[in-house]
Amino acid sequence: MYYFNQLKSVLRLNELAEDPVDLTDDNIFTPKRVDSFVSESLGLRLFYATERVSEITIQALSDLAEEAGVFEKMQKMQAGEVVNSIEGYESENRSVLHTAMRDFFENPNESPIAKEVSHMAYQELEKLTEFLKDLETNDVFTDMVQVGIGGSDLGPRAVYYALKAYEKPQRNAHFFSNVDPDDGALVLKDLDLSKTLFVVVSKSGSTLETQTNEEFVREHLISKGLDPKNHIIAVTGKGSPMDDPSKYLASFYIWDFIGGRYSVTSMVGGVILAFALGMDRFLDFLRGANAMDKLSLKQDVKTNLPLLSALLSIWNRNFLGLSTSAVIPYSQALFRFPAHLQQLNMESNGKRVDKQGRAVDFDTGPVVWGEPGTNGQHSFFQLIHQGTSVVPVDFLGFAESQYKDDIVFKGTSCQEKLLSNLLAQSLSLARGQKSDNPNKYFPGNRPNRILMANKLDPYTLGMILSYYENSVAFQGFIWNINSFDQEGVQLGKKLALQYIDLFAQKRAKKSLDSKQFPLGQAYFRHLSSYFS
Amino acid sequence: MYYFNQLKSVLRLNELAEDPVDLTDDNIFTPKRVDSFVSESLGLRLFYATERVSEITIQALSDLAEEAGVFEKMQKMQAGEVVNSIEGYESENRSVLHTAMRDFFENPNESPIAKEVSHMAYQELEKLTEFLKDLETNDVFTDMVQVGIGGSDLGPRAVYYALKAYEKPQRNAHFFSNVDPDDGALVLKDLDLSKTLFVVVSKSGSTLETQTNEEFVREHLISKGLDPKNHIIAVTGKGSPMDDPSKYLASFYIWDFIGGRYSVTSMVGGVILAFALGMDRFLDFLRGANAMDKLSLKQDVKTNLPLLSALLSIWNRNFLGLSTSAVIPYSQALFRFPAHLQQLNMESNGKRVDKQGRAVDFDTGPVVWGEPGTNGQHSFFQLIHQGTSVVPVDFLGFAESQYKDDIVFKGTSCQEKLLSNLLAQSLSLARGQKSDNPNKYFPGNRPNRILMANKLDPYTLGMILSYYENSVAFQGFIWNINSFDQEGVQLGKKLALQYIDLFAQKRAKKSLDSKQFPLGQAYFRHLSSYFS
Repeated sequence: MYYFNQLKSVLRLNELAEDPVDLTDDNIFTPKRVDSFVSESLGLRLFYATERVSEITIQALSDLAEEAGVFEKMQKMQAGEVVNSIEGYESENRSVLHTAMRDFFENPNESPIAKEVSHMAYQELEKLTEFLKDLETNDVFTDMVQVGIGGSDLGPRAVYYALKAYEKPQRNAHFFSNVDPDDGALVLKDLDLSKTLFVVVSKSGSTLETQTNEEFVREHLISKGLDPKNHIIAVTGKGSPMDDPSKYLASFYIWDFIGGRYSVTSMVGGVILAFALGMDRFLDFLRGANAMDKLSLKQDVKTNLPLLSALLSIWNRNFLGLSTSAVIPYSQALFRFPAHLQQLNMESNGKRVDKQGRAVDFDTGPVVWGEPGTNGQHSFFQLIHQGTSVVPVDFLGFAESQYKDDIVFKGTSCQEKLLSNLLAQSLSLARGQKSDNPNKYFPGNRPNRILMANKLDPYTLGMILSYYENSVAFQGFIWNINSFDQEGVQLGKKLALQYIDLFAQKRAKKSLDSKQFPLGQAYFRHLSSYFS
Repeated sequence: MYYFNQLKSVLRLNELAEDPVDLTDDNIFTPKRVDSFVSESLGLRLFYATERVSEITIQALSDLAEEAGVFEKMQKMQAGEVVNSIEGYESENRSVLHTAMRDFFENPNESPIAKEVSHMAYQELEKLTEFLKDLETNDVFTDMVQVGIGGSDLGPRAVYYALKAYEKPQRNAHFFSNVDPDDGALVLKDLDLSKTLFVVVSKSGSTLETQTNEEFVREHLISKGLDPKNHIIAVTGKGSPMDDPSKYLASFYIWDFIGGRYSVTSMVGGVILAFALGMDRFLDFLRGANAMDKLSLKQDVKTNLPLLSALLSIWNRNFLGLSTSAVIPYSQALFRFPAHLQQLNMESNGKRVDKQGRAVDFDTGPVVWGEPGTNGQHSFFQLIHQGTSVVPVDFLGFAESQYKDDIVFKGTSCQEKLLSNLLAQSLSLARGQKSDNPNKYFPGNRPNRILMANKLDPYTLGMILSYYENSVAFQGFIWNINSFDQEGVQLGKKLALQYIDLFAQKRAKKSLDSKQFPLGQAYFRHLSSYFS
């Protein structure tokens, strides 16, 4: 039986955590340290001299990876074994095969399940290629709106904005997710619906928000004299209530072994990304993700960047006791990427029981949040530098800009100023600053790392997406939790239906039975002045 | 001398925190509890039955407010006494008078300083009114771009999107903040610059990003054959490097007693908001903020909503030991509002020394983060319900939608479904759920509150803005910290200049002196393959 807190490497790491490396010490933080704590793979560089680790810590973390069997677990996941499960209890009991959604390039996985799934994914991709070619020929549609929520929204949205610089001319993407009617009203207000396609995405075909919003779209199309069937595409699971090709212009499929938050590279992200960016760029994006999936199988902590990053996160979370993690991309195009990572990480690893259903006696996933730099520097960085809570920071940076529309001002370009700020923040968080004025004193020892790439292009973003997906999975493997279910979202859904029932009765002017949901009725009484 | 941890009320609260209210107990969480823990002022309702408090806790928190002298401190702040200071050390030593930026309505503050400042603010408002009238007459400009960062960006941006439903026809606002050249490239790409105004906002007139971005804008205007002087407006401090009306179409002023994060209701937000929404709506927004400022002076914990909210936050932070706080607006229009509150809160209260310069021995400001609901429910709510870290949630809700473009689907409107979800999340976080399947077990006791209003209109948003500003100030008063400076952002700026210097030398092809910033040079060596 696996007990995280009884692993030999965990006991060793607990010892090491009693006296972690002091980054404010000039004898420790030298140029040599910078050289020792940088890993390069696939053209990405991970700088982690600014984490509170020594070679000894890295060795102990590497032992933890070994003891937790992470290499075997990652291999099993990519091979399609059932890893989404809780032993001895009712659970989803599924394979987890988002990696198969992009395994069409070099060294495809040889397991029969992974091969079969990858083949199914490729067939959808071919259907999509044909569909987009036809669109091209007719050349009617300029805009596409993604109608989906959670994983059907955050990932595709983040990737679209990240790569907007690569958008095809005369193509635009939009996103409509919230059941708030003002979301749909604003998105639809200025669109020419006759030139607009909607892609409705729900694996179950029964997501309350997405069902409602599909209806919202249908009513708006009809009110403009348009036939919804010519404007709506479905992305759903086979056999779901949405699986009815007669109602849609086209239907694409996903499967229950693709979790929402891991679905960007499936048809969930594919339809809108390939429409907006072109199929070639979407394929480059998949190629990058696939390359990082292969790297994630490497049994060497310093080469396997997602694993190295996972181990540093575990060090910060379980041994230094830090409860949040900020993701700060120094790239405005990545302004929605932290929201995607927030879901990816918190929905995967915000768990309280392990794979045997036992309540854990250690901390699992942290609160993940963030905004782009340099913007954040003029905002919440105050707390990160001088607050009473230490917040580890995960920086992302790129040497080149996307548009190459830059100026030289006072001797440097904007891009150089951007990079200077990124490097400066990393160093100043780690190093701190002495001062006789206590208000100008910076304690330092605020751990952070930088992932650097040359340029934010489709291939690189694919790598970065997979880097985080696999890093999250590695953390789950080490904690021995199920990173692939999400039971925590069920209770609220159930209770919402009770409130919806109260609203429906109010709307139908029925008098409420005092025994029906008395707590809900108490809230209703206080809100009644708004409702009258 | 003020020692937070030695206050009588704090000792009492520590006792109470040993056994906080159990919200999962059916005998405790009754309709009567809902009735007992709701406060109404100015048409806003704060529901806090779902916080882990009893009447006894509220009494002790009320005693804390009294003991900390918060009423007097709020009065002093609004009267213009010097509250931005650290005693005995060099500090900003200033008044804090954002409340005077909107004190033109009922019961204006009678202190001579507040009166004088409010008069100065009103003069700028009159200048702005004239300027916008002239624009109206000429009717050339359809678009305005705000060029500013931090407080000159986040608040105005959040408010603009929140009130976009009230935008004047043919008017659009845009925001350009990041020194990342891709930010400017994307914002400017599709604009007709001949119809575009830029409002460059920097109190000091020397913010690196804003100076650079002003130059970026100037070069782009010139390249289109346009004269920058006819397209750029300045908002800055008197005597700053930007205070040169000959270079601008118009110049508006702010003062050093307006902190960036508190500046939305000054000309920092005023120019673009009044341009886009119209002066009447901007005045409604100010009127709402002013009404809440007056409410903040009320010496009654249950009427004074910003104070009540501050005390509940202190309870969660210092007595229940919760290190983050999520803000979840159930309104898509507020999608950027959490980013504004993140700055407001974390830059104000992310501090480690008190007003006497002593390192604090208790926790100050939490990490504040959030995304709109219902979206978050399909993402990070997993962790909030079932993670190992407890995250208090600050919900915002509105009875009516803005656009009134809604449908009835399966017996209820979208707006009703939205509200049902909000109420359901609040209750399910507090109440939890028993289950024989440990993975379907919800521990509950996850504290949260709901601030409800009728509709997100300019007046209401003004109230909500001030509610948070004053709540943050109250927390700072109780902790005896300076919520109005931001020394923590200085060190990174200094270090960035060292990197910029390396880049400038590289660009000028100078060979670097090995003694100059060796740590920076170490990073440069590893990045050299990107730079070649």
